[in-house]
Amino acid sequence: MQDLINEIIEEVLDRVKKEAFIQVEASGRHVHLSKEHVEALFGYGYKLNKAKDLSQPGQYACKERVMIVGPKGTLKNVVVLGPERKETQVEISLTDSNVLGVKVPIRQSGDLKNTPGLKILANDNVVNLENGAICARRHVHITNEDANKFKVSDNQVVSVKVFGERPLVFDDVVVRVSDNFNTSMHIDYDEANACGFSKGTLGRILKK
Amino acid sequence: MQDLINEIIEEVLDRVKKEAFIQVEASGRHVHLSKEHVEALFGYGYKLNKAKDLSQPGQYACKERVMIVGPKGTLKNVVVLGPERKETQVEISLTDSNVLGVKVPIRQSGDLKNTPGLKILANDNVVNLENGAICARRHVHITNEDANKFKVSDNQVVSVKVFGERPLVFDDVVVRVSDNFNTSMHIDYDEANACGFSKGTLGRILKK
Repeated sequence: MQDLINEIIEEVLDRVKKEAFIQVEASGRHVHLSKEHVEALFGYGYKLNKAKDLSQPGQYACKERVMIVGPKGTLKNVVVLGPERKETQVEISLTDSNVLGVKVPIRQSGDLKNTPGLKILANDNVVNLENGAICARRHVHITNEDANKFKVSDNQVVSVKVFGERPLVFDDVVVRVSDNFNTSMHIDYDEANACGFSKGTLGRILKK
Repeated sequence: MQDLINEIIEEVLDRVKKEAFIQVEASGRHVHLSKEHVEALFGYGYKLNKAKDLSQPGQYACKERVMIVGPKGTLKNVVVLGPERKETQVEISLTDSNVLGVKVPIRQSGDLKNTPGLKILANDNVVNLENGAICARRHVHITNEDANKFKVSDNQVVSVKVFGERPLVFDDVVVRVSDNFNTSMHIDYDEANACGFSKGTLGRILKK
């Protein structure tokens, strides 16, 4: 009997969470590479090797690691995410940008105009990236079904209350609707630390 | 005429800011040392040397720097704040705690029971701190006059909307009322980066 009650409670909790909350995920620093830069760093015809699938369908962490070098400092062992992209993009936190000595703007993924460059190193090869370094703007990936449920639309800017150990409300969160995504909020590690994030931390979309 | 108008506008802006907003300040990692630990690190009878006054009356950054060592990593060149305190206290961010490999709790200053210790080094001297490492809970220092104006009381927990480049609302902000303080909100560098803090960033106290 106790088991059955617990099972029902778990199911109710699970469903309420799915109705009212979204998962929060913290993204560490990473690099997306173009085919040209994969080959410049790892050799002609080289293919990235998947290490682990990420929460967003089709996206994966690779076995490959690179070093990022700025005028003031270096970040070692930075993960490459696959698959290859049209343009190389380096996503770092503002803490990282202070370490590197490069001022990076807060941008949506892919919006690389007038962003600073950096050196990317792997093995003994170097890519002198002319632009492509950003601090990712916090965002919610959401399926069409969940967008209907939460009554939000693509590119809408919302606030999200995050129930971490240090609760807060992130304003200026951009919503990206696509069935290519699983529904989740993405923040960087500065933001994760500021809200006391741990695995399983939930958020609730608030509209203005 | 234009000059006079600008002067009036500046004065109005200044007064509105003071009426509705509080200054936000970002605190970097730092160490408060007991007399015993000052002497252990720098020598018998040693007195800390003031380098610069801080915004809070009587508090100052010292010329002295220490190294903090955890099981996984090291933080060099950490500033010592004066004057000496009854108990040594190490205040670091959660980013720092990951670097050091020590899990520190979110605590108010002085609440050091059951906190982890660390090694503190200066010159060739070492203090093996048994406890005293915390991540400072975000807080508002406020004068009695401003507490009356904003209708808050000592130890009240409020939310503060911060108008940085990445605006957000910090919940769970504790208010400390004292005429020994200047009115300002104190956050750490993770929180500063999460809200896109820069010098002059303002906050507004929101009550639940």
